[in-house]
Amino acid sequence: MSIDAALVHRDQAYDELKADAEKIRQLIEVQMENLTMPQCPLYEEVLDTQMFGLSREIDFAIRMNLIDETTGKNIMAELERKLAELHEASVSK
Amino acid sequence: MSIDAALVHRDQAYDELKADAEKIRQLIEVQMENLTMPQCPLYEEVLDTQMFGLSREIDFAIRMNLIDETTGKNIMAELERKLAELHEASVSK
Repeated sequence: MSIDAALVHRDQAYDELKADAEKIRQLIEVQMENLTMPQCPLYEEVLDTQMFGLSREIDFAIRMNLIDETTGKNIMAELERKLAELHEASVSK
Repeated sequence: MSIDAALVHRDQAYDELKADAEKIRQLIEVQMENLTMPQCPLYEEVLDTQMFGLSREIDFAIRMNLIDETTGKNIMAELERKLAELHEASVSK
């Protein structure tokens, strides 16, 4: 067994992941505001890629036992709701 | 300060990241093999997205002090070399 171990505060792991989620939430907000400006295209792919990146981070954190699965799923679910709002707003504009 | 802390073995973090990198390496290999079959398109976007996901995982692991920056960069650099090989092979086919 390795003696090279790190003591990780779960708070810190959670805070880091929440900060990354917040950045994506802000990207979504910017997109929402841009809906009124037809010259600004929807960067759906950018958002999808960012969401995928965060899901990989969260998955890794769960595997490392730094956050529990429910917490991780909740962070993603919150962003997905926000993204669904954006999609609805863009369809109905 | 939180008392909810996890003791994380850095070996485990490294192994998890290497396993994820290996999955992408295999995806690249499959693409290499498919170059001889023109009916199979190159999934560059899929690979790029996978690479981005891994880079987010590694970045998180570095921030959590689970791997050092050089190790993380080496994992990505190795895959990027492999990806460059694929691009070259696909251009020259």
